[in-house]
Amino acid sequence: MSSPKAKVLLVGMGGVGSVAAYSLEYGGKAEVTAVLRSDYQTLIDDGFEFESVDHGKVNCFRPTNITKSVEEAMEKYGPFDYAIFSLKNIPDISPIEPLIAKCYTPEVGILLLQNGIGIEKPIFKLFPEAYVMSGVTMVSSTLYGRKVVHVATEHVRVGAYDNGKIPYEKQVAKCKKFIEIYSTDKNDIIYDENVNFSRWRKLVYNACVNSSAALTDCDIGRLEVFGAMDPIVRPAMREILAIAKSDGVDLPEDVIEFMIRSDDGEWYPPSMLVDMRKGNYCEYQVILGNALDIAKENGVPAPVLSCMYHLLHVVQMKTQEKKGKFVLPEVRPLPADNFQIKYLN
Amino acid sequence: MSSPKAKVLLVGMGGVGSVAAYSLEYGGKAEVTAVLRSDYQTLIDDGFEFESVDHGKVNCFRPTNITKSVEEAMEKYGPFDYAIFSLKNIPDISPIEPLIAKCYTPEVGILLLQNGIGIEKPIFKLFPEAYVMSGVTMVSSTLYGRKVVHVATEHVRVGAYDNGKIPYEKQVAKCKKFIEIYSTDKNDIIYDENVNFSRWRKLVYNACVNSSAALTDCDIGRLEVFGAMDPIVRPAMREILAIAKSDGVDLPEDVIEFMIRSDDGEWYPPSMLVDMRKGNYCEYQVILGNALDIAKENGVPAPVLSCMYHLLHVVQMKTQEKKGKFVLPEVRPLPADNFQIKYLN
Repeated sequence: MSSPKAKVLLVGMGGVGSVAAYSLEYGGKAEVTAVLRSDYQTLIDDGFEFESVDHGKVNCFRPTNITKSVEEAMEKYGPFDYAIFSLKNIPDISPIEPLIAKCYTPEVGILLLQNGIGIEKPIFKLFPEAYVMSGVTMVSSTLYGRKVVHVATEHVRVGAYDNGKIPYEKQVAKCKKFIEIYSTDKNDIIYDENVNFSRWRKLVYNACVNSSAALTDCDIGRLEVFGAMDPIVRPAMREILAIAKSDGVDLPEDVIEFMIRSDDGEWYPPSMLVDMRKGNYCEYQVILGNALDIAKENGVPAPVLSCMYHLLHVVQMKTQEKKGKFVLPEVRPLPADNFQIKYLN
Repeated sequence: MSSPKAKVLLVGMGGVGSVAAYSLEYGGKAEVTAVLRSDYQTLIDDGFEFESVDHGKVNCFRPTNITKSVEEAMEKYGPFDYAIFSLKNIPDISPIEPLIAKCYTPEVGILLLQNGIGIEKPIFKLFPEAYVMSGVTMVSSTLYGRKVVHVATEHVRVGAYDNGKIPYEKQVAKCKKFIEIYSTDKNDIIYDENVNFSRWRKLVYNACVNSSAALTDCDIGRLEVFGAMDPIVRPAMREILAIAKSDGVDLPEDVIEFMIRSDDGEWYPPSMLVDMRKGNYCEYQVILGNALDIAKENGVPAPVLSCMYHLLHVVQMKTQEKKGKFVLPEVRPLPADNFQIKYLN
C-alpha cells in the first residue's frame, strides 16, 4: 500500500512556481493545489506548456487543483501539509503574511521559494511556532503567456529556519520530509544546513547586478562593456560580503568574480531589469532594503547599495503611480500643504 | 557717428542660445552669426518664433547671419570679436575644443554659456592666452521645433576666467565690454567677479536634482513626494558643498533648501530628465564628472554623487548604442576576447 500523497499548497505559478508544481506532481508523492491570480483562467482553460531542460516538451500541464485564492484553496482542499510561496517577493506592495494567515495550521510546513534576505523572521511575528523552510532556487525559468521556458536544471537548496520554539530536530525532519517529496530523478533538491549562507551568496548577484541593471536599463553584458563593474558592481558586492559577515556569514572573496562571470557569453537581463522593462514592481525591498537594514543594525557602511536602494525606491513609487495605485494632484503641493499620498483601492 | 557693431559668433541656437542671439540683435550693438546643425534649415526657411517673458510674442526672428558650421562662419563673416558657445556641454560626445580652434584669434573673447564646473581650463591647454569668459545663465527657455518658449527673465552672470598670461585687467575689460554689448532694457546681465561661486551654486541643483531625476525618470516634485530628498538629494548637495569648499568656494548651507524649493508648485522636469526622455545625451560629465575629479584631487568623499555618476555613465553609453554610434556583437564577448567598443563614423 502506497502512502497517501502529501497535500501541497503552491501560491504563485510563475517561472519558479510552475516548475516546482510540475516536479511535485511528476514525483507522484504530492497533490498540488495551485493559487493563481492573473493566469488563473489561462491555466484552467489551456493548461501550461513546458519547454523544460528537465522535463522536455510538455504540451499541457495542470496541477491537481487550481484555485483563485488561498481562501478558496483552504476551503476546498485544505488543510495542507506544506504551503509553498513562490510569488514575487514585494512586501511593499503585497506582503505574504495575510496569505500565510489564511492557510496557517500548527502542522503546515511553509516554504519560501523567494528572493531576498531576512524574509523568514517576519513570519514568526505572526506565528512564533511556524515551521518555516527557506528555499534558494537556481532554476532559470520564465513564464511567457502559458508557456514555461525552463533552461537550467531545477536546483533548490532548502533549509529549516529555526523558530526557536519547537525542537530543531522536529523542524529539520519536516523539512527533510518535504525534500523527499519534492525530489525526483530530474531535479536536484538539497537539504541546506546553512541556507542563510546560500541566501547571502545569491544576494551577491541580485543586490548588485540586478539593481544596477534596473537603474540603467542594461543587461549584465552591457553593464560590463559600458564600465559598470569596477565602479559600481564590484564595490556593491564587497558591501554585501561585509554585511553578510556582520550577519555571521563568511562568504569567500572569490564569489565576487564567480557572480560577475556567471552569465558569461550571454547578454543576460537580470530579473529586476525584466520587471522594469515590463513596467512591473521589482524586489528591491527584500533584496536591497533588508540587507541595508542588517547593515544599519550592525554598523556596516554600504554607500553604493544605499544609493541604488533609494533610487529604486523612487522608481517603485513611480511604478505604483503608473499602475494607478494613487493619483498625484495636478498642481504640485507646497510644503505647507503637508501632502500625503492617498492610495486608491 | 555710431560705433560699428561687434561681430559675435554664436554656436548653438537652443533655448539659451536663441534668447542670447535675440538679445544681442535687439540691443543693436552686435551682429550675430549663428551656427546651427539640426535646426539650420528651419531657421533659414521659417525663422524662430518667440513666446518670451522678456520680448513678448515674436513671429519670426533670424540673426544677421546663419551658417551650418564654424568654418563657414569664419570664412564668410569672421574673424569675430566674441564667440559664444551655447550648445549642450557633452565633451564625451562632442567636445567644443575643435570648434574653438576653428574660430580662434588672439583677440576673440570666448564665452561659455554652458552647464558644468571646471569647463574653462581645457581651453587654456589649447590656447593658453585665450580670453575666456564664463557665463552662468538662469534663463528658463526651451526650443520646441521653431518656437522658443522663454518663461524666466534672461539673467546671466558673466566673469573673466583668468588665463594667468594676459594682465587680468585686460581680460576683465574685454568681459565688461561684452556685458555692455549684451545688456538691454529687458535682460539682466551681471559682471560676476567670482563666477566660479555661481557655477558651484548652480551645480548644487544640477548635480543632485538633475541626476536623481534622470536615473528615476521622475520630475523634482515626484522626487520629493516619493522620498528622494532626504536619502539622495540632500546628501548629494552636501557633497557638492564640501567639494566646492575644497575648491575655495564657500557656499552657504542654506543654498540646499533654496535649491530644493526652487521649483515649488511645479512638477518641473530638470534638463537632464528632459534629455533622457527624448533619448538624448546628458551633461553628466561636466556636471558630475568634473565635480568628482575635483573631489578626488582634493580627497573629498562623494559616495552619492559617485554612484549616480557611474550609473549615468552606463546610461550615456546605452544612449550612444541606441543612436548607432557602435554596434555590439550578437554574442556577448568573453573576457579572453579583450573586447573593445569600435565606434562607427
